[in-house]
Parts: sequence; structure tokens; C-alpha cells
Amino acid sequence: MDFAPDPRTEELRRSLLDFMAEFVYPAEETLEAEPVVSWSRPPVLQTLQAEARRRGLWNLFLPGEHGAGLTNLQYAPLAEITGRSPRLAPEALNCAAPDTGNMEILAVAGDDEQRLRWLAPLLAGEIRSAFAMTEPDVASSDATNIATSIVRRGTNWVINGRKWFVSGAKDPACRILIVMGRTAEDGPIRERQSMILVPVDTPGVQIGRGMSQFGYADDDHGGHAEITFTDVEVPARNLLGAPGSGFAIAQARLGPGRIHHCMRLLGMAERALDLVRERAASRVAFGRPLAEQGVVQEWAAESRVRIEQARLLVLKAAWLMDTEGNRAAHTEIQAIKIAVPRAVEWILDKAVQLHGAAGVSQDLPLARFWAIARSLRLADGPDEVHLRSLGRRELKPR
Amino acid sequence: MDFAPDPRTEELRRSLLDFMAEFVYPAEETLEAEPVVSWSRPPVLQTLQAEARRRGLWNLFLPGEHGAGLTNLQYAPLAEITGRSPRLAPEALNCAAPDTGNMEILAVAGDDEQRLRWLAPLLAGEIRSAFAMTEPDVASSDATNIATSIVRRGTNWVINGRKWFVSGAKDPACRILIVMGRTAEDGPIRERQSMILVPVDTPGVQIGRGMSQFGYADDDHGGHAEITFTDVEVPARNLLGAPGSGFAIAQARLGPGRIHHCMRLLGMAERALDLVRERAASRVAFGRPLAEQGVVQEWAAESRVRIEQARLLVLKAAWLMDTEGNRAAHTEIQAIKIAVPRAVEWILDKAVQLHGAAGVSQDLPLARFWAIARSLRLADGPDEVHLRSLGRRELKPR
Amino acid sequence: MDFAPDPRTEELRRSLLDFMAEFVYPAEETLEAEPVVSWSRPPVLQTLQAEARRRGLWNLFLPGEHGAGLTNLQYAPLAEITGRSPRLAPEALNCAAPDTGNMEILAVAGDDEQRLRWLAPLLAGEIRSAFAMTEPDVASSDATNIATSIVRRGTNWVINGRKWFVSGAKDPACRILIVMGRTAEDGPIRERQSMILVPVDTPGVQIGRGMSQFGYADDDHGGHAEITFTDVEVPARNLLGAPGSGFAIAQARLGPGRIHHCMRLLGMAERALDLVRERAASRVAFGRPLAEQGVVQEWAAESRVRIEQARLLVLKAAWLMDTEGNRAAHTEIQAIKIAVPRAVEWILDKAVQLHGAAGVSQDLPLARFWAIARSLRLADGPDEVHLRSLGRRELKPR
Amino acid sequence: MDFAPDPRTEELRRSLLDFMAEFVYPAEETLEAEPVVSWSRPPVLQTLQAEARRRGLWNLFLPGEHGAGLTNLQYAPLAEITGRSPRLAPEALNCAAPDTGNMEILAVAGDDEQRLRWLAPLLAGEIRSAFAMTEPDVASSDATNIATSIVRRGTNWVINGRKWFVSGAKDPACRILIVMGRTAEDGPIRERQSMILVPVDTPGVQIGRGMSQFGYADDDHGGHAEITFTDVEVPARNLLGAPGSGFAIAQARLGPGRIHHCMRLLGMAERALDLVRERAASRVAFGRPLAEQGVVQEWAAESRVRIEQARLLVLKAAWLMDTEGNRAAHTEIQAIKIAVPRAVEWILDKAVQLHGAAGVSQDLPLARFWAIARSLRLADGPDEVHLRSLGRRELKPR
Repeated sequence: MDFAPDPRTEELRRSLLDFMAEFVYPAEETLEAEPVVSWSRPPVLQTLQAEARRRGLWNLFLPGEHGAGLTNLQYAPLAEITGRSPRLAPEALNCAAPDTGNMEILAVAGDDEQRLRWLAPLLAGEIRSAFAMTEPDVASSDATNIATSIVRRGTNWVINGRKWFVSGAKDPACRILIVMGRTAEDGPIRERQSMILVPVDTPGVQIGRGMSQFGYADDDHGGHAEITFTDVEVPARNLLGAPGSGFAIAQARLGPGRIHHCMRLLGMAERALDLVRERAASRVAFGRPLAEQGVVQEWAAESRVRIEQARLLVLKAAWLMDTEGNRAAHTEIQAIKIAVPRAVEWILDKAVQLHGAAGVSQDLPLARFWAIARSLRLADGPDEVHLRSLGRRELKPR
Repeated sequence: MDFAPDPRTEELRRSLLDFMAEFVYPAEETLEAEPVVSWSRPPVLQTLQAEARRRGLWNLFLPGEHGAGLTNLQYAPLAEITGRSPRLAPEALNCAAPDTGNMEILAVAGDDEQRLRWLAPLLAGEIRSAFAMTEPDVASSDATNIATSIVRRGTNWVINGRKWFVSGAKDPACRILIVMGRTAEDGPIRERQSMILVPVDTPGVQIGRGMSQFGYADDDHGGHAEITFTDVEVPARNLLGAPGSGFAIAQARLGPGRIHHCMRLLGMAERALDLVRERAASRVAFGRPLAEQGVVQEWAAESRVRIEQARLLVLKAAWLMDTEGNRAAHTEIQAIKIAVPRAVEWILDKAVQLHGAAGVSQDLPLARFWAIARSLRLADGPDEVHLRSLGRRELKPR
Repeated sequence: MDFAPDPRTEELRRSLLDFMAEFVYPAEETLEAEPVVSWSRPPVLQTLQAEARRRGLWNLFLPGEHGAGLTNLQYAPLAEITGRSPRLAPEALNCAAPDTGNMEILAVAGDDEQRLRWLAPLLAGEIRSAFAMTEPDVASSDATNIATSIVRRGTNWVINGRKWFVSGAKDPACRILIVMGRTAEDGPIRERQSMILVPVDTPGVQIGRGMSQFGYADDDHGGHAEITFTDVEVPARNLLGAPGSGFAIAQARLGPGRIHHCMRLLGMAERALDLVRERAASRVAFGRPLAEQGVVQEWAAESRVRIEQARLLVLKAAWLMDTEGNRAAHTEIQAIKIAVPRAVEWILDKAVQLHGAAGVSQDLPLARFWAIARSLRLADGPDEVHLRSLGRRELKPR
Repeated sequence: MDFAPDPRTEELRRSLLDFMAEFVYPAEETLEAEPVVSWSRPPVLQTLQAEARRRGLWNLFLPGEHGAGLTNLQYAPLAEITGRSPRLAPEALNCAAPDTGNMEILAVAGDDEQRLRWLAPLLAGEIRSAFAMTEPDVASSDATNIATSIVRRGTNWVINGRKWFVSGAKDPACRILIVMGRTAEDGPIRERQSMILVPVDTPGVQIGRGMSQFGYADDDHGGHAEITFTDVEVPARNLLGAPGSGFAIAQARLGPGRIHHCMRLLGMAERALDLVRERAASRVAFGRPLAEQGVVQEWAAESRVRIEQARLLVLKAAWLMDTEGNRAAHTEIQAIKIAVPRAVEWILDKAVQLHGAAGVSQDLPLARFWAIARSLRLADGPDEVHLRSLGRRELKPR
């Protein structure tokens, strides 16, 4: 057992920290000053992306030949750092959800043509993508409930259904959707779903309103779109993998996504703690700096204790995925989904509280961070689904 | 000891519930459909106000000769009902903050001229008002920290300072600000502050950007403005009460405001529970309706237990204020500020969780309710200030 | 609505507080000094009982003609006061569980002969009684699961079964057991149980070991016995009420018992807060008295807030029982069972923490209080049973 | 970074698990059946110790030449296993507190004579020892508050003072006390304390009553004694290290002790989870096994999530101590003291709840485990002291 990072990780960490200090944090102010063009990426990102690429900080998330080739355990600490500036850093490195997951799917389940057509421009940061999974009318965190239909018509597939919270889809740069739907009405319950590639401009695709999350529409990130698919017809070759492989692909996508999300959340928690440290040193109440008050000290200590525990759990999950595979890491992957968002939510809540009115406002990133952490308690299934599943396994007689 | 409401309260409750069912809830859909004209009150409110006035449901919040003459204990259950539709009902009844507090101040501390000039149109619902207290640079929940200056110049007062989170100030109908500032630099620490009436159109008053709370700008309620006062000059008669009475007036305003806020929060909690009930009955997961699942049952039970306890505490605080005065109710008034927002926050969190993605979105009022409850943990001082004060009193040797 | 106690309650409160100060608290030291004679009541109780009776503080718990005739709402604040010294005060007033519940049963369900034979000496404090309900092998909080059999044989009933946690049964003064068992194997599920009077010295009754609760055997209160009933034969007239009425009697007994238990817990919480106050004033850490430290102030404030809410909820439950009956108070009776023990447990936990090693030891009553509060989360059914039941009712469509 | 245990640890784990299954768990029943001879070790321990020694499972806790030579990281998972049967396993392996800490002190700070005289028989399991640190009258978790005096008189040291909660001191096999006291009244505040060896039979040493922890006197483990030292005179050579080195020795002792305590707690948590698993599979409520109920599943899942996080944190602390020293592991050593007892306390609370009345009783180890976990929130300083210290460090400007 050894808790020290390996040299490559350590080197990339240092390089990324430099990039954050020199480019990303300064760009946050530019971001605030620039007028928002709804749903589009902020212009400052182009500069950041060019610089990241120059420094070899590009596509770090992607294992294997198509990406940087890092293991989950190596990428995790880097994802954490990008979380410190979640509106800029992940995209600056071309490591932002949902593109990351989509690129993974294309890398793993796509054929050569699909990869050439869509993976290449995504890896180059030229286009963006979205993942159309969640449906308003069913508990779609359980993929077997998906109602959108994908039906064969001649040499094409025809898609009908309604999705929402399709993140990034309102970005004009978003060109391709990976859509989850049902290709079979019977057979084994986990072999009825398939994923299919749907170019955004296919007739019948209607990108609707943006859904908000606690007041945030994320209009600088392509939002979270409602999309209706009405007799949307695409060629047979757009199906990803074999018909019926959708559930399995979705499962495979989950593990790394959880690692990324959770580590970014921990980055937000560390950023919040930085803000807490500054405020506590400078603000006076009842005649003493906040930093000298017992309650504030307890908050800071609790925050540290929670971060350390959460980070270790994520790193172990990443290690297990790397060494024994996603299946063996099942418990840990569920555990981080349960443990990390709520730990970070707690930390952010206290950071908000310490900052008073400023904490809930647009002047600090805390309220927005909070909304991200809170929403992750629901993303790919409410925590309760994971608690239940993990609990059932735990209660099995041994 | 008797927990039954008196006949007048009971009658008003029934009348208000009818009004909610016949007018307010249906108007919620109108509200969503109407285009928002930023910072202005939604047009549908005019209809509601006319009807409320017709039914004798007007200015219920105000005790004494100028208002409906209810006690705090009588008004509290009515405030709760308005909380079920917080964007419409309080204003429909002319019982919305911050106008309520401002009208109380004018009724109690204003002279005849001030009441005629400002209280009368406020009571008639013709204009709106704002309360400029919070400052970005100091811990202004402690009024003795207020930095805005109010300095005598001839027969006028001159105001300089910066305020923020001035709710309602961006509403074009907002005509008058009650501004808290310092009129003395020495003397007893709680006699250095004064409140002064500043018409919005006074030169030097600059209404700036709206501050948001967890992504919500409340642009249908006049927002939460940043305001700078630069050499703002008003006549001497605009001062409320004697110079140095600001702190005392602020204290007097607190008690009823807390009752109103807390009861409205409980109304939101009950509304959330209604939504939970509907969703739990109709949504199926793991093969059974949510209503039959143990975890959901526990959430519902916990919600009920927390609501009941919180409501009783608020009602007792109201009763104490009515029978023994604000001072005697000090502990209870602090206690509800601590207990109620977090109880309601918990309930709303579970309600959001039960609704999945819809819960965080604009399609349900839950996320917005949550942001209100969360922000109230900071409004007029973070909970920690009240915990500390209550705790010190509790720890005094007896 | 009125939160002031009525004159009779107020007078009894004052009288009881005097009695506590003059007799009970001083007797606590006697209790510690006296050698314990296992399972017997401490001798000092006799003096206390004589004095309590002299002062008219006797059998206050019992409504109606046989007792003091107080309502639940009137008795509740008195029960709270006795909870401040739970090893002495309740018994000093002949108001200790399980005798109180047993006397209620005899008063309500007993016939004249049963009352003469058993209620009279219990009311006089001459004997004690126990209530044999809980069984080790079934979830006996649900009375329909009771497995002990009560079978007719000629003019007698024959009892077979095993009970445990029969509080008070090891006290040599305990003469009579009220035993819950099954008198029918079919018919409506809630009409199969009966209660029967079994004198302790009936052949076949074997009082076994005392069960402990978190290390406490309660050997000065008759303990919590394991009892086996082997062909125990008693005359037909020993049955309480009609055959099959056991479940209904048990239900009726629950409400007042909950009020008593919960109010006594609140008395323990107040006592703990007194100890906290003293310790916080006298103990110094990090150069300042504990009373001046933020964390301790928060604990004290939280304790006060929780006590106030819990007490109001219990009082409302008592009022509902008095005015509308046990059935109408169903939600409140469940709610206090859920809310009060855990509130008090929290308060006691903090009080222990503040006292360091002394807090967990026999030198302070805190650890023992804690064990009482903790055990009440299981007594007459784990909280989860009540949460589930309350939640189901809350989730019913309206 | 690597989360796999090294081969030696893995081999010892397997060997220890075998020993537990074949000897320790069966001996638990013997322990219950044997009559307790107050304060003495249960006879069954001799058999266990002989067998453990035979299997090379002896003194595993002690690094360096005198013990098994394991690192903290290697020993930690073994300590966890012994925690599954805390009344037997640690002592069976001669790895029980407080002897472990005392042996470490002797190994590190003792001279040859002291080691020969006391360390040798302790390592052989022939005698036991106690550590007299805590004092009733001061906040002795801060060693600088220690009031017991150690004064030079000729060639001897004379000790006066009162200690309590001296674990193990009532065991007749306990022969030696390590006493912490003040050897200087001035000079640097952390160089005024010294540790001194005091044979139990030295005149003036009076072993008083045993202190209990939540009703548990631990009379099968030598209890937790109150001890008065009245003019206790020992030769100069009994001092451990140089005068004034007591604080530093105490600090060095803390780290490993925390690791041991925390890992044993996690062993108790795992044992509790085993019991939960069995009960949940076999007990039926509301017509279904507990294992199929959502609330129980959530408890099990939460327990697993908390255990995993806590264990990783302890292991990291152990690794840091091994690789960078106690000082570098300061934050982690404090963090586990805060995080682990409360995590385990939560898990045990739910396990108790699931078992109903049996859970609080002597029939299951759960209530006793709970008392251990709860008491550890106070042992060597209440959590709040550690939170405060950790928080202050966290809030230091960077």
C-alpha cells in the first residue's frame, strides 16, 4: 500500500497548477466582464484551449491510444484541479462533460467511420456533443425504463421520444447527440436499449428550452436542453455497437464519469476552503477575526476531514477500476456517488454561510458550486437508488 | 393552555383558503405563461389584489388602527397560507416583505406627515418600498456596524454609502427607501444609527445591478438591488423618529418580520409535502409506487414531525410577543430564526430529491422555495449570530 | 390559542418544585451513599413518599376519580419536573412507570374486584407491578405478533410463554404482573390478544435474569426481568376486560405513557442543561471559561431550541388527547415518540462531551440519562415503525 | 499510489483470521459462561495467548527490534481484526491498550534497566501496566494542565496527585504505572512534565474505585481506576527519559495509539455489520425480511460507505507516520480521532436499532461496542479540542 502519486501524475499536476495560476484564474475575471452570448462558449476559452494544448494538457481524461493514455488513478488528481474553476478549466483542457463521456463511448464502442466522423473533431475541440438519456416521464436513471423508441425502417433507424436535461445541447457548437433508446420491446431487459448517433441538424430534432438547476441555466455551457425527437431518421450505421448494447455501454461510461465528477467537486471544495481561509482572516465579528472563532475553526476542520476521506475513496475507486475493472469497483463507484456530493455540499454550505449575503450571490462561485454538487445527488440516479443497490449487496448472506 | 385557534382566525383562514383555491393557484399558471418584464410585478397581481381587497383579505399583517388589527398570533396562520404561493399570495394581500416591515415602521415610528405621504399609498398598494440596511463591506446584521453616513447639512440630511440586497428596489413601482445609517460617531453604540426616508428619485441615489440568490434574481419582485448613495440630500423631516432611534426601530421591526418569514416558509413546506404526496402516489420505482417505499415514508413522516414542531414554536413566539412584548419573546424569536429555515430546507431537499431532475428545475417551485429558505439562514444575520446570542443567555448563571 | 398554564397546574408546579428542592435533590446524595440491595427500592424513597403524600403530590398521573383527576395537559409539566431526578422523583410521587400504566389499565379495564385487589394497594404505594409484553423471539412492538398463549382450561386460564425486559419485576415489592398473550388463534387479528393478571407467586412464573440497557441493570428499580411462564394457571376472573380486548387496552395505555416518558426526558434535558451551565461557568480551556466559547454557546442554544420545540409538541399531543381523544392525537403521539428521545439524546450527548470523562461516569447522571433516552427509541417499538406508520398516513391522497 | 496490502500483511491477516475463527469467537461463549472474578482477566485468555504465541501472532503492534517489527501500515489491518472481539483478541495477542502504549514508551524512552525490569515481562505477557494521565480536576487532555507533582527529594522523586480513568489498574496482574506529572513549575510550558515509573505496590499509591463508562465498569479488563498518590517515593532512575520530556513522549505515543484504537473500532463496526446481515436476513417485519426493506438497506449502505472512508483515512495516517513521521501526519492523526469514532458510533446505533431490545442488552456486543466508540470521542481529549486545533491550522494564511 502506498499513498504517494507516481512521477507522471506529479509532473502533470505541477504543470496544470501552473496553467491554472497563469491562465485560468485570470480568465475568470475576463469571463465575468464579457457579455454572455446565450448558450455559447465564452470567447476566452479559445485562448485557454490553445495554451493548454501547447502545454500538453489536452484530452488528459482519455485512456488508451486516442487520448493522453492516463489511468483513472493518474487522471483523478488532475480532474480535481480543473474543478477549482469549473466553468473554464475542464473545457480549456477538452476534458469537460458530457464530451468526455461521449468521446469515451466513441473510442470504445464506435467503429472506424464513427470515430473518424465524430471522435476526431471532438478530440480536436472543434465541435461539441451531448448525451440524450434522461426522460421527463420515467425514472430514467434506470436505463431499462427508457421510453424513447429506435425503430428500424428499411436501412434507417427512426427515433421518437422526449428527452430533457441534455447538457450542452444548446451550444451552437454542439453537432452530435448520442441518444439512448429502445430497439427491442422484448428479450432480456438489459438488452433492449441501444445508443445511436444523431446529428443535431437531422430533421425532426427539436432543441427546446433550457432547463435550469436551482436558478442556473448554465447558458455559457450549452445549457440543459429539452429535446423532442419526431420521426428522426438516421442511417443504420449510426448505431453504436450492436443493437441491444446500449445498457452495457452506459454502464461502462458510468465509472470514469463518476470519478471525474467527484474529483471536480473536491476541487470546488478546496477552492471554497481557500475562500473561507481568506474571509476568515480578514473579516471581523464580535471583535475578533472569524479565523479565531471556535465555530469557524470547527467548520474548517470538518471540511478538511470530509475532503480527505472523500478523496481517498475516489482514488481507491479509480485504482480498483484500473486494476480489477469497473465490475470489481461497483461498491466503490456507488459509494463515491453517495458520499462525495453530500460532503462537498456540506462544505459549500458552510462556506456560503461564512460569506453572508455575498455567499449566495453571483459575486462568489460558492452558490453555483453548491447547485452543481446538489444536482449531482440526482444525476444518473438519485442517491437513494445507489444506496438501495449498495445496501442490498451488503446485506446478502455471506 | 389551549391549542385551538380563535373564531376570527378560523374564519379568515377559511376565507383565505377559498381565495387561494379560486384565484391564486390558477394565477400561478398565468404567471408562468406571461412574458416577464424585468423587475416589474406580474400583471396578474392586479386582479388578485382587487379580489383580495373585495374579500376583506387586505393588509392583514398590520396590527392597530391602520391595518386589519390582528394580533401576531392571529395573523401567523394566514401568513403560512400565503407562503404556499410566495410569488403571488403575499403581494395579492398587500402583505409582502419588505413593504410589510416598512409599513410597520411608518405606522409606529412615522409622524402624521410621513404616514400620509408614504404609508397611505403603501396601504393602498399603489406604490412599493424598500429597506436599505445590508452593506457589502461590514457585518451589517449587527446594526452597530452600519457604515453609511447620514450627516446634517443645514436643514437637510446628506446620505453617503453603499447598500446591497435591497429587495424590491428595482421594481419601477418602488418609490421610497427606508435607509439605515449613522447619524452619530460617538455616544452609546446603539444610539448612533437612524432611519431616514429617501424617495427613489432623489439625486445621488443610484440603483445598480440586481444581486442573485442561488441563481434567482427575483426579477418579478423588484430584485435585490445594489444601491449607492452619493451626497443624497433629503429634508430634515424625512428622518424617522428622533436621531439615534434607528437601532431601536430595527429591533422592533424584527419580531413580526420573523413570524411572517417563518410562517411563509412553513406554507412552502406544506406545499412541498402536497407535491410529494402526489408524486409518491403516481410514480413507480422498483415495481412499487414511491408511496409504498420505506425511505419515502420516513421522509414524509420526518417532514410532518418537523413542520409541527416548527409551527408550534412560531405560534408560541407570536403569542409571547402579543402578551408580553418583543423583549420577553427574545429567545423564541431567535429560536424560530434558527429552527424554521433549516427544518424547511430539509423538507424541501427531500421533496426535490423525490422529484428527480424536475425537482431542481423551473417546472416545480421546489428549488426556488429552497433558495428562499436557504437565504433566510443568512437574512438579518447568519444563524450563528443568533445561536451565539441565545447560547450566551442560556449559559448565564441562574 | 393560549400558551399559559392554568392555575391548578401552576400551583402544583410550584409545590412540586419546592418538594424537589427540599427533599428530592438532597436525597440523591443519600441514594449514592446507601449500599444497594439489589433490585429493591432504595430506603430513602419511603421518606420521600410520605412527604409527597402529605403535600398532596400523590398519584398525580391518574385522571378520573381514582387519582388526582388531572388532565394529560395538566400532568405533563409535572411529569417533566419528576424527570429531573428520574431515580427518585417519579416513585416518590407514586408516578413511576410501569405502575402508572398498570394502574391506568386497572382503573379503566378492571372490574371492581380487580381494582380492590390490585389497584388499591398500588395507589397506596404498598406494592409494585410489572407489565409483561415484550418477547425475545418476535417483533412484539406490534402486539399482533405476541406469541405467549393464554388458553382456557376449565374455569382457569393457562399461560405459557417467554417475556423479557419486564421492568420492575425483580423488585421484591412487585406482586402482580399484567401479561399480554393470545387467547385466540383466529378471528380479527386485533382481537386475538388479551391481558391477564398474574400474581408473581403463581406457580410456573419464573423471574429470570435482569436485562441491562447500555450497561445499566437498573437494580434499584426492580430491573428489567426475563420471565418464563410455564403452565401458569390463574382463575378466569383474572382476565382484564373481555377476551380479545388486549390490543385495544394496550393502545389506550400508549398515549398517556408516551406523554409521561417524553416529559420526563425533557426534565432530564433541563437538568443536563443546568449541569452544562455550571460546568461552562467554572471550567477553563484555552484560557477562557467554556461559557465564552462559541462551540459551547451553540450547543447550549441548540439544546434550548430543541427542548422548546419538543415540549410544545408533547403539550399539544396531551391537549389533543384531552380534547379529542387518543385516536385524534394519533399523529402527535407518534411524533413525540420519534422527536423527543432523539432531541434529548442529542442534548445529553453534548452535555457528556462538555464534562469530559466525568460525563460518561457514575459521578454525573448524564450517561444514565442518555441510556434512558436511547432505550426509549426502541421502547414500544423502534422509531422506524412509527415513522413508517406516520409516513403512510401522511402520504395518503387527500 | 497503490491500495493493495503487501504480502507480509496479507499473510498475517489470513493467519489472524484463522485464529479468530478457531479460537477467539468460540472463546466468547466461554467468557460469557465463566463467572467474573472482578477486575481480573478471564481465565480463557491464557489458552488464547499460548495459541497466539505459538502461531507467531504476538506483540504484532510493536515496531523495531523488541516487537514484531511491523510498520504502522502493516499492523493497522491486524488491529482492525482484533477489534472484532475487543474483550479477547487484543489481549490474546498481547496487543491491548494500555499495555501497548506503555511498551512503546519503554521501548523508545526507557533505558536498559527500565526495559529489562518492565518491558521484558510486559512483552512476555506476564504482567500488565497502566498509564496514569487523566486527572479529575483539570482539562488533562492538554498535558500542560497536568497538576500531579513529581518533586525531587534527595535521590528520589516524590509524587502527589489524583488520577482517574486509569485503565487496567485494578487488574491484580497490573504491576507498574507510568505516571505523568509536573517536574517543573516554570520554563517552557511543554518541558515541565515528566513520566515516571511507579510500581503499584509503592507505599502511598492507593487504587480506588473503578470508574464506569455508560454503565460498563470493564471489570474483566482491570477497570478504569481512580488513584491517589500521596507522598509516593520512587528512586531517581524511575524517571523515563530526561526531566521535562513527558510532553514529548506523550505526543509520540499518541499517533500509534490512535491508529490502533481507530482500527479496532472499525473491526467492531464490521462485526456489527455481520450481525446486521444475519438479523436482516432472518427477522420479518410487516410481512417481509428486514433485508428487503429500504430503510435497512440504506443503513447497511451508509455503514459500508462510512467504514470504507474511515479505514482509508486511518491507513493513510499510518502510511504518513511510517514514511514522514508523526509530525507530518499531524492533520491525519487528528482527523481519524474526529472521524472514526463518530462513524462507528453511527453504525452501531443503527445496528442496535435493528436488533431492538436485544441490541441494548448484554446478549449482543453492540451496546458495549457503542460505549467504547462513544468514550473514544473523549479519550485523550474531546473531539472539539482536535477540531479546534486542526481548524486553526487549516485557516492559517497560505
